[in-house]
Amino acid sequence: MQQFKLTKEYLENIKLLLASQKTDLLIAALDELYPADIAEVIDELDTDEAKGLISILSTEEGAEVLRELDEDTRIQFLQSFSPKEIADNFIDNLDTDDAADILAELPEDKKNDIIHLLKDKEQASDIKELMAYDEDTAGGLMAKELIKVNINWNVLTCIREMKKQAEEVSHVYSVYVVDDEGKLKGILSLKKLLLVTTSTKVEEIYNDDVISVRAKMAAEEVGGIMKKYDLVVLPVLNDDGKLIGRITIDDVVDVIREEADKDYQLMSGISENIDSSDSLPLILRARLPWLLIALFGGIIGSQIISIYEPQIMVHPEMAFFMPLIAAMGGNVGVQSSALIVQGLANNTLQMSGIVWKLGKELLVGLLNGLACSGVLLGYNLIFNDSLALSFTVSIALLSVIIFAAIFGTFVPLVLEKYKIDPALATGPFITTSNDIIGLFIYFMIGRLMYGIF
Amino acid sequence: MQQFKLTKEYLENIKLLLASQKTDLLIAALDELYPADIAEVIDELDTDEAKGLISILSTEEGAEVLRELDEDTRIQFLQSFSPKEIADNFIDNLDTDDAADILAELPEDKKNDIIHLLKDKEQASDIKELMAYDEDTAGGLMAKELIKVNINWNVLTCIREMKKQAEEVSHVYSVYVVDDEGKLKGILSLKKLLLVTTSTKVEEIYNDDVISVRAKMAAEEVGGIMKKYDLVVLPVLNDDGKLIGRITIDDVVDVIREEADKDYQLMSGISENIDSSDSLPLILRARLPWLLIALFGGIIGSQIISIYEPQIMVHPEMAFFMPLIAAMGGNVGVQSSALIVQGLANNTLQMSGIVWKLGKELLVGLLNGLACSGVLLGYNLIFNDSLALSFTVSIALLSVIIFAAIFGTFVPLVLEKYKIDPALATGPFITTSNDIIGLFIYFMIGRLMYGIF
Repeated sequence: MQQFKLTKEYLENIKLLLASQKTDLLIAALDELYPADIAEVIDELDTDEAKGLISILSTEEGAEVLRELDEDTRIQFLQSFSPKEIADNFIDNLDTDDAADILAELPEDKKNDIIHLLKDKEQASDIKELMAYDEDTAGGLMAKELIKVNINWNVLTCIREMKKQAEEVSHVYSVYVVDDEGKLKGILSLKKLLLVTTSTKVEEIYNDDVISVRAKMAAEEVGGIMKKYDLVVLPVLNDDGKLIGRITIDDVVDVIREEADKDYQLMSGISENIDSSDSLPLILRARLPWLLIALFGGIIGSQIISIYEPQIMVHPEMAFFMPLIAAMGGNVGVQSSALIVQGLANNTLQMSGIVWKLGKELLVGLLNGLACSGVLLGYNLIFNDSLALSFTVSIALLSVIIFAAIFGTFVPLVLEKYKIDPALATGPFITTSNDIIGLFIYFMIGRLMYGIF
Repeated sequence: MQQFKLTKEYLENIKLLLASQKTDLLIAALDELYPADIAEVIDELDTDEAKGLISILSTEEGAEVLRELDEDTRIQFLQSFSPKEIADNFIDNLDTDDAADILAELPEDKKNDIIHLLKDKEQASDIKELMAYDEDTAGGLMAKELIKVNINWNVLTCIREMKKQAEEVSHVYSVYVVDDEGKLKGILSLKKLLLVTTSTKVEEIYNDDVISVRAKMAAEEVGGIMKKYDLVVLPVLNDDGKLIGRITIDDVVDVIREEADKDYQLMSGISENIDSSDSLPLILRARLPWLLIALFGGIIGSQIISIYEPQIMVHPEMAFFMPLIAAMGGNVGVQSSALIVQGLANNTLQMSGIVWKLGKELLVGLLNGLACSGVLLGYNLIFNDSLALSFTVSIALLSVIIFAAIFGTFVPLVLEKYKIDPALATGPFITTSNDIIGLFIYFMIGRLMYGIF
């Protein structure tokens, strides 16, 4: 395929065609695009233009495009439609999971109106059921559309019933086998179905080895299971073991990516899921609090240094290396926490105990610290006259690096233990704490060294 | 399902059973586990134990387990087998894509021996074909196993041929429609196949709207396409448009996650894909270079400060706020770069130009800078006597924050332009540069202010 790339020229052209109402040319222009591409175009249009564009699509395609829109754009866009229009044009054409997600973004009363106005009462009750689940659980990720067959049927009945159900389901990923009570018994592969005669019983050919999850399982854990076991689709059961829905990998890809993005943003000192196109107040709200925390840490740091003002007046050269000590502590601390946070996120940390990890990190800190403080000692002995300063700086650097390595390992593990997001440890918090403690160590050692030399 | 969690007790138990050769009990213990779970167990065993455990599994299951092992464990493990054993017991039972990936980890001569020893000559040539592709391209991700039907067949022929092909293919995701030359024409949904009579022609029911990629496309781009268009499987074409393989989403989930991990590690100052269980030399190699860069930056910083030694001797209080200025510059710089890096990774940055982005970041910097320097000015006016110091610190902070915001935005965009990984900008590099320039700005402003007040 030629991958679609939205250019300024393309967008201008679409806007012109919309303004001049050249519907034929518009249809031709959009014909080659997939819903996800059209959504990219609409994300850049104003609401009137967007309405114009959607109106020339089939309702099925319009619904798909709506699903792919940026959340902000979608909320804006849907404000210009009545509940009846939203129900008929969009929700009616969506799978239950997407419908529930989109409805959840709307105001309470509008949401209820739309659900009441849905023609397909089964879809309405399915959507209501899905909306009752927390969005960060398996129930919140699943869709109701699936194909299931009874364990007592033969292949002929099976295929007949599957044909009926298939009309409602857009993709057939798996055929589930249930008993008379609706409890999940296993899975029937389409491949097997191709290979046997029509009189064969389902019981004889189904596979009872199927991985499933309960509706209450956390989305993050669902993502871990689908990734670990390479699953494309995962059946969801209620507390009684009844099959109530299925989760597809595309929804979970988003969960996996969002999780990684969240950790990344926390490390960079950004507290909400923003991107650079978001509004100014939103960007400030996500960034300023972290800066104020760092500022507060810096003020405490300045007070610690001020305690040692007499020392600085006698040995102003001590001031030269303060930023170096602070920065190195911060860098080592972030390295150590990042390894732990990533290990926790990827589930690669389980086996070895906390003492072992701290011990290893201590060793890494010691070796890195020796290397760095060795280089620094060499530099200072060559270019600086003061023996006291040279030893102060290198011993302090070694101490700060070792401290930061252990502190950086310890903090995320403790946060995880108390069910706080360990990624918090990697942000400005750890650099700021390391700055303060690092400076304190530096001046303590300075006092000691200048006493000796 | 009960999700499997590997505990120390469980592992000890397995080791005991292995040592006492209680095969029956071992088989019973492993019966409930999936290959990915057994791989987790083996990752914690030594090579002899691992061989013992694998030997009680069927060869199909053993091959699956091998595929799921940690790369380091797998390389170690395979060293204890002859090429013939590896060919018969493992490679023969794997899909071509997994076989090619595993063989790529082995030494050149052993790899070639194994391929020659494969009984299935078609598999051998498929594997050789796959190994010719760069692992970071669509060709490197794809497998040869797929089901294809000729556009001129009818449904009956189709199903007969599919039955034959299905024996070779473990999961049937899609049925591809090709012409007599093997060029991809479209896709045949299993659902459609269920709904029509056996005399219907493929031509009448296939869907010609299928997204495909060329074998040379970068893995990252393949991931973007599968994510954007919610694809579970993606056909791969050669330069002539012939269907040569397919990529499934499970392989791409790993690509998506690894990419995010790489950006995360670069930001935290870790240059290789390591986790805390890796060997000490590997961890040091990934972490020490960044620390040495930061150290080098710190030394330059110390030299800049030393230029201002006379100033510090007269006004030692200026030293108090050096770490604060440096840290704030670093924090703002990382925030700004992280937003750009993430925007580039998620493809949400295309539309607006570089000037616009720098302008917006300038505004964000100005507002954050005014807030932070305002708070700091208030603090200093209340708790510090020196007007000169108070204004120096706040004006310097404002300047440094604005500078860091612009610098942090600019650097990753420039790196991206010159095809260097923009995530490099978020690591110690940006904090170190900001430290140096921040200190320089600070003392310049200090000289000015102490001249005025």
